[in-house]
Amino acid sequence: MKTIIQGACIIPMTGDEPTSITGDIAIQGDRIIAVGPEIAAAGNDRIIDASRCIAMPGLVNAHTHLAMTLLRNCADDLDLFTWLNEHIWPREALLTPDDIYAGSLLGLAELIRGGVTTYADMYFHQDETVRATLESGISANIGATIIGDEEETRKRLPVLKDLHSRWNQAENGRIRIDVAPHAIYTCSAGSLTLARDLAASLGTMLHIHLSESMKEHQDCMQAHGKTPAEYLYDLGIFEVPVYAAHCVHLSREDVSLCAKLGVRVVHNPTSNLKLANGIAPVQRFLDAGIPVALGTDGASSNNNLNVFEEMHIASVVQKASTGDPKSLNAYDTLRAATVGGAKALGREHEIGMLKPGMMADLILISTDAPHFVPLNNPVSAVVYSAQASDVATVIARGKMIMRNREILTLDMEEVYARAGSSAEKLRLVR
Amino acid sequence: MKTIIQGACIIPMTGDEPTSITGDIAIQGDRIIAVGPEIAAAGNDRIIDASRCIAMPGLVNAHTHLAMTLLRNCADDLDLFTWLNEHIWPREALLTPDDIYAGSLLGLAELIRGGVTTYADMYFHQDETVRATLESGISANIGATIIGDEEETRKRLPVLKDLHSRWNQAENGRIRIDVAPHAIYTCSAGSLTLARDLAASLGTMLHIHLSESMKEHQDCMQAHGKTPAEYLYDLGIFEVPVYAAHCVHLSREDVSLCAKLGVRVVHNPTSNLKLANGIAPVQRFLDAGIPVALGTDGASSNNNLNVFEEMHIASVVQKASTGDPKSLNAYDTLRAATVGGAKALGREHEIGMLKPGMMADLILISTDAPHFVPLNNPVSAVVYSAQASDVATVIARGKMIMRNREILTLDMEEVYARAGSSAEKLRLVR
Repeated sequence: MKTIIQGACIIPMTGDEPTSITGDIAIQGDRIIAVGPEIAAAGNDRIIDASRCIAMPGLVNAHTHLAMTLLRNCADDLDLFTWLNEHIWPREALLTPDDIYAGSLLGLAELIRGGVTTYADMYFHQDETVRATLESGISANIGATIIGDEEETRKRLPVLKDLHSRWNQAENGRIRIDVAPHAIYTCSAGSLTLARDLAASLGTMLHIHLSESMKEHQDCMQAHGKTPAEYLYDLGIFEVPVYAAHCVHLSREDVSLCAKLGVRVVHNPTSNLKLANGIAPVQRFLDAGIPVALGTDGASSNNNLNVFEEMHIASVVQKASTGDPKSLNAYDTLRAATVGGAKALGREHEIGMLKPGMMADLILISTDAPHFVPLNNPVSAVVYSAQASDVATVIARGKMIMRNREILTLDMEEVYARAGSSAEKLRLVR
Repeated sequence: MKTIIQGACIIPMTGDEPTSITGDIAIQGDRIIAVGPEIAAAGNDRIIDASRCIAMPGLVNAHTHLAMTLLRNCADDLDLFTWLNEHIWPREALLTPDDIYAGSLLGLAELIRGGVTTYADMYFHQDETVRATLESGISANIGATIIGDEEETRKRLPVLKDLHSRWNQAENGRIRIDVAPHAIYTCSAGSLTLARDLAASLGTMLHIHLSESMKEHQDCMQAHGKTPAEYLYDLGIFEVPVYAAHCVHLSREDVSLCAKLGVRVVHNPTSNLKLANGIAPVQRFLDAGIPVALGTDGASSNNNLNVFEEMHIASVVQKASTGDPKSLNAYDTLRAATVGGAKALGREHEIGMLKPGMMADLILISTDAPHFVPLNNPVSAVVYSAQASDVATVIARGKMIMRNREILTLDMEEVYARAGSSAEKLRLVR
């Protein structure tokens, strides 16, 4: 039995130039087996009418801290220091594994409702996030997070290796465990080197925050006489495949270095703007050939996990930042949220495009709303007009996990009850 | 018979500091008659359960070109000159009154679905936009648009006066006709002076584009040795009440001048960013005491009419622009979209707040979605987490015009059919 999605406006994301076709998509098991104008259906095939929908690859949210959904709307319009010290850290100190499970389920529900089928996380009590992700049906690169000095990290190594051995490649690769040293200002040089060695020995990618704030950049220049990217380079971090979040303050030389070394950048426009960190030079990254992905960062600095919003904001802000309305055009933006995300997470051979052989991770966007009329250019419509709530159907690895906006894999009453209970405890923190 | 909205999380927008209460709102006729913790209902009152909703004033979209919805997604990622000359103007030249009616209905549907109950328009064939607005149930300040030199404007004066006499204050003030000279680069000095005289004689406000692009600013400096704001001041334009859209390149002196003269600014963040015009110094406007409103501009440079998106973008972009995460905080942003919009359009005594005596223009935002959990701070939730699609119910002048996201005043099949037909003609333009 196949599933055939019929009559959609398909944006396959397979080419360097935007294209869309009206046609069908055939799915067998967890894979796409055909994309074309009209696919013959057998009698027992499952038919999905998508005649008022845009079909496109599931979105990739390439940098988040999923369980921070529990801290949503609890502290806004604050400088970074007050925000972290007085609001975020005192609450994070209280988070138990049960809370992380609750916050992860809540985040997964939001991701699915916004068309995300793959995400990358960096947080703690990761077993709980893995467990929730496996229930949800979507895929994730989960960070084995490293913070602190060399001694602390050395002590943690067995725990990190255990995490990797328990979950890496679980469910045919739905879960991957990457090594995730937090940042240069929270990890010592020795700790960063151990992270690199761990990633190299396990054959994983490395997920890190890089050049997020001007303070990070300036402190590094002062302490080491080099930029954060140069500092990581000199430590040999880029000898393993790296995806780096934020990259707001990369210098022109950093951009060349990252391009040469194959570093992938995860752009987090809302978080960078909201915390007043600045605007990353995304068009420059693209011009240099750096793969660019999009991420929401955690819900506490956003305050949602809405990749449609990130696309819209990324594109229009880049135009103002460069003074050129052709910067970060609609198609390059959509590529960042799909193909670029796949590349960032080392999944470009399985997701990010609609073509035979790829995993059947795809979404149907209902165009039955005034803001899609006239449709004219489907790529512009998705990037500039759409809302996350327009996603009607989500298929992950061939399985329908949301239909008519109802998530089929999670019990939403339970999700809300668990999240409410965990959030209540945090709300009372003074 | 009263209508009583029960058990909502109410954001009344009445104070200088954010407040919210859980309570009820009573409506009689077109007015709010009570807001409080618990309002006694009579047997025949209509009860609306809002226990999982945020209730707040309807939003104000204080600058748009409504019928440009027909040009949605038809030309993106282009410089202003190519965009206007090759894509927008050739299509606008084809627009008939029927097209303007079709595009206005489409725009109204989108506004209502996004919680807007009042808007300001500047376009042409205004009778059609008025007619559509009256059908829709919401309110509008419609611009009597002026473009060209003094002679052209003098010839147009009878037509503009007729428009005003036909519609100004129609349906108890739902429609107002304002005088709308397009901009300093499309109207001669004589034409602008006539516009001022017309506004003064009719007692209307004046709606204009101001300092939108650096080119407008530089051309004005070169031609007149003064900024666009100084140029308008010297022409006496600010002797009538003015709301000015964009204001991206106001100088510090311009800001002081506008504050002193009571000029109201309409901030259009998405359009300013997308056309690479820049970032308006909104926090500076607020610090100077200038009333700030929000607008989407036309759908062709946005590409939607989503005021929630404008709020989110306005706030986070301002923080990055000033380097201060406390800039344009959530409450000031929400004020711009409500109270500020009311002030801009001269309607502050009738809309923008939920309190007895105000028009019953209000929206219920459903919080039954993962991105509202935990709610924590309702104002942050609306500005940073909400989507336009979260608006469940819209009440305009006491009348329910959208219920469970279904618009009750417009026949959506007809809206789509008319818009589709008009857009098809435009799509074929080469």
